[in-house]
Amino acid sequence: MDEIREILPKLQETIRQKDWRTANAMVADLHPPDALELILEMDTSERVIVFRLLKKQTAAEVFTDLPPDQQQILLELFTEKQTAELLEEMDPDDRAEVLDELPAGVVKELLKAISPAEREMTAKLLGYPEGSAGRIMTPEFLEVRPNMTAAEAIQYVRRVGPNKELIYICYVISPHRKLKGTISLRELLFAPPESKVSDIMTPNPIRVYTHDDQEEPANAAVKYDLLAVPVVDTEERLVGVITIDDLTDVLAEEASEDVYRMAGMEELSESYFNTRAGTLFQRRVIWLLLLMVAQTISGGILKYHEASLSAVVALVFFLPMLAGSAGNTATQSAVLVIRGLAVGEIDLRALWRVILRESGIGIALGVILGLVGGIIAYFFGNDPRLFVAVSIAFMLSIFTANIVGAVLPMLFKRLGFDPAITSGPAITTILDITSLTIYFAVAQAVFNLSTA
Amino acid sequence: MDEIREILPKLQETIRQKDWRTANAMVADLHPPDALELILEMDTSERVIVFRLLKKQTAAEVFTDLPPDQQQILLELFTEKQTAELLEEMDPDDRAEVLDELPAGVVKELLKAISPAEREMTAKLLGYPEGSAGRIMTPEFLEVRPNMTAAEAIQYVRRVGPNKELIYICYVISPHRKLKGTISLRELLFAPPESKVSDIMTPNPIRVYTHDDQEEPANAAVKYDLLAVPVVDTEERLVGVITIDDLTDVLAEEASEDVYRMAGMEELSESYFNTRAGTLFQRRVIWLLLLMVAQTISGGILKYHEASLSAVVALVFFLPMLAGSAGNTATQSAVLVIRGLAVGEIDLRALWRVILRESGIGIALGVILGLVGGIIAYFFGNDPRLFVAVSIAFMLSIFTANIVGAVLPMLFKRLGFDPAITSGPAITTILDITSLTIYFAVAQAVFNLSTA
Repeated sequence: MDEIREILPKLQETIRQKDWRTANAMVADLHPPDALELILEMDTSERVIVFRLLKKQTAAEVFTDLPPDQQQILLELFTEKQTAELLEEMDPDDRAEVLDELPAGVVKELLKAISPAEREMTAKLLGYPEGSAGRIMTPEFLEVRPNMTAAEAIQYVRRVGPNKELIYICYVISPHRKLKGTISLRELLFAPPESKVSDIMTPNPIRVYTHDDQEEPANAAVKYDLLAVPVVDTEERLVGVITIDDLTDVLAEEASEDVYRMAGMEELSESYFNTRAGTLFQRRVIWLLLLMVAQTISGGILKYHEASLSAVVALVFFLPMLAGSAGNTATQSAVLVIRGLAVGEIDLRALWRVILRESGIGIALGVILGLVGGIIAYFFGNDPRLFVAVSIAFMLSIFTANIVGAVLPMLFKRLGFDPAITSGPAITTILDITSLTIYFAVAQAVFNLSTA
Repeated sequence: MDEIREILPKLQETIRQKDWRTANAMVADLHPPDALELILEMDTSERVIVFRLLKKQTAAEVFTDLPPDQQQILLELFTEKQTAELLEEMDPDDRAEVLDELPAGVVKELLKAISPAEREMTAKLLGYPEGSAGRIMTPEFLEVRPNMTAAEAIQYVRRVGPNKELIYICYVISPHRKLKGTISLRELLFAPPESKVSDIMTPNPIRVYTHDDQEEPANAAVKYDLLAVPVVDTEERLVGVITIDDLTDVLAEEASEDVYRMAGMEELSESYFNTRAGTLFQRRVIWLLLLMVAQTISGGILKYHEASLSAVVALVFFLPMLAGSAGNTATQSAVLVIRGLAVGEIDLRALWRVILRESGIGIALGVILGLVGGIIAYFFGNDPRLFVAVSIAFMLSIFTANIVGAVLPMLFKRLGFDPAITSGPAITTILDITSLTIYFAVAQAVFNLSTA
């Protein structure tokens, strides 16, 4: 970051002076993400020049990571040759990602610029739904036959490797293209040259299917320490591999997505400062209004019990404490289940096991919080009935909150929604309603009140 | 998972029949995480047998991932030779992780079992603080000199590689062990055999320092698509590398940690079902009690305004809506800042820029929510003063909530705490207090009420 801030003014000055040699030296060794940061700080005409100065591979990577609207502006300014070179240089999965965000007309023009083989590969990837394993795989991998020797396989890697994104893992396939095993370049290098691939390969490798969610290969890579995850079609034929660099991006993206959803908002496609304030406002206001309108139910419950509230004003004092504690309890159990679902430890068949566990924990939490709440209430109001009412209301509310928090994410998962949205704001709003209902039912019994 | 459930009873039966050959065939090709799942379902005597049947490398990996108390039980049952083999087979960073969790007396005994060279490496790693880059690096990497040729470097990889965890990246160092560049096995294989390493290496590589937090190399690997991140000491000398498999674990761990903290609880060291219910209860109850006691402040504010509440009971109706909306608003802005801090986009110098942005957004949100809230209030109470009071209270509360949500994580970061704990339960509790204070101040002015 700091380095970029230093380079920027010097580079801009060099470009103004048309000193291409010096400018070239300044950007030649930049890592792609640093070049991207630099370019984001420049105006369009400077960008076009810098793209010409960058190494081809760096230029392709930087371009891939630019926001789509800025890609489009640049494409209009690039020469046809420059565009073709840029697209040819990209890995097929990156190319699919870029083309996916651009208008259909532009894409059609661009596809004409690249070779038919590359075009076909890209079109195939674009056929898989966004967020699926098929969409982020590369169809360029190294495949070897089980009856090859280690020496033959190494020769093959040396011959074909330069065009492949990944050369450290070879995939062993049958004549019908079924995935039989994997073998690493490491194993090939250190095995006796005459040994058979089928003898040294890892058989029955971890794989995912083209239509699997992209989280599946990402979780598999973490669990099994893989450099790449092979992707097969429904007939178990190998059609691509996803490399670890794309999978770490998925992990980072999914982590952000979960966190944003837990806070009741949609994730951002750009970073915080790169997102316009108006966009931030829009992403947030819908959820806030929705939750606010849901809270009118709480208002309705309170209005319904207006007479009770007038009779025992002290009941109001413990509303924030009760609703807050119930919301916090539910948030905790929801997050436990959400994480369990995300890493695959909890599945829907475990519903009763989860309910049983959280019932036990809910009782324990309810008793502790109920007693403490009751004591606080007693000292506030100096009325033993407050101790009884608040204690019982807390116990029941906390127990309910704990179960609702655990069950709601599973219900959402079952209905095909992201369980993460149940946590935080959504669940606290629901718990406000259940806690108030419980509270007034208990208070009316203890204080012998009747509804309006 | 399903496969494991099928294998388990068969394997247990085979072991009972002492049919070692069949048992061996059943476990020989298991991936380490699957072998771990299997072993977690078995009793201790079965585990000892299965550990003998597993491949050495698999056994070492499975053992590393067992809970520490279960490692200790097994170590007492293993023969001295078995223990020594297991420890020798581990990578130095894994060995450090295992030894770190065991009692000092056991560690002393175990260190005797391994070779002096391995012992020294492990002791050095254990000298770095937990959670630091130095703790998770491996000191076994491939180093080449800048004046070597590509062919010489490949020969060196073939000769020394079998003992190294990572062979796909070589590190180019000066005579004083300073890190000059990196070169991948890919680049070496496809370069002309006579080309100099210094000409084809990537100069000025990304690096981290031994005492950096482990998040730094993990974020660097994601950003720069690295298979490993080199670790240098304060004098820029290369002392180790962290491989991508360890970094993806860090990413997954940090994502979980953030999510748990946002829900007001400490992260779990085991998975949900492997954590005892009592432990879950303990992790949760402290936070819940703390937040509950903090909520007595809200109770105090309400008690202080008892007279106002008795005079205008309708004021109570909008308490959950107001406190809920303020809490949700603050949660949103907190999460935006927490994510920005986590990925390094926002730093503390950006404080005023963040405040400025969130002020603007806070005004917009406040106006919209205030008007909607006021209208709802009017229809509830049929009193124009309610419209005025609720509208103004909402506008001020939402604006305040938005700023507090954005500033609090930065304050926590500044004080050296994890910003993630400010989100969710903690911030909603704080916002209950600020919203109530604002609400009553506004209501008293509008309804011309005096405090008790």
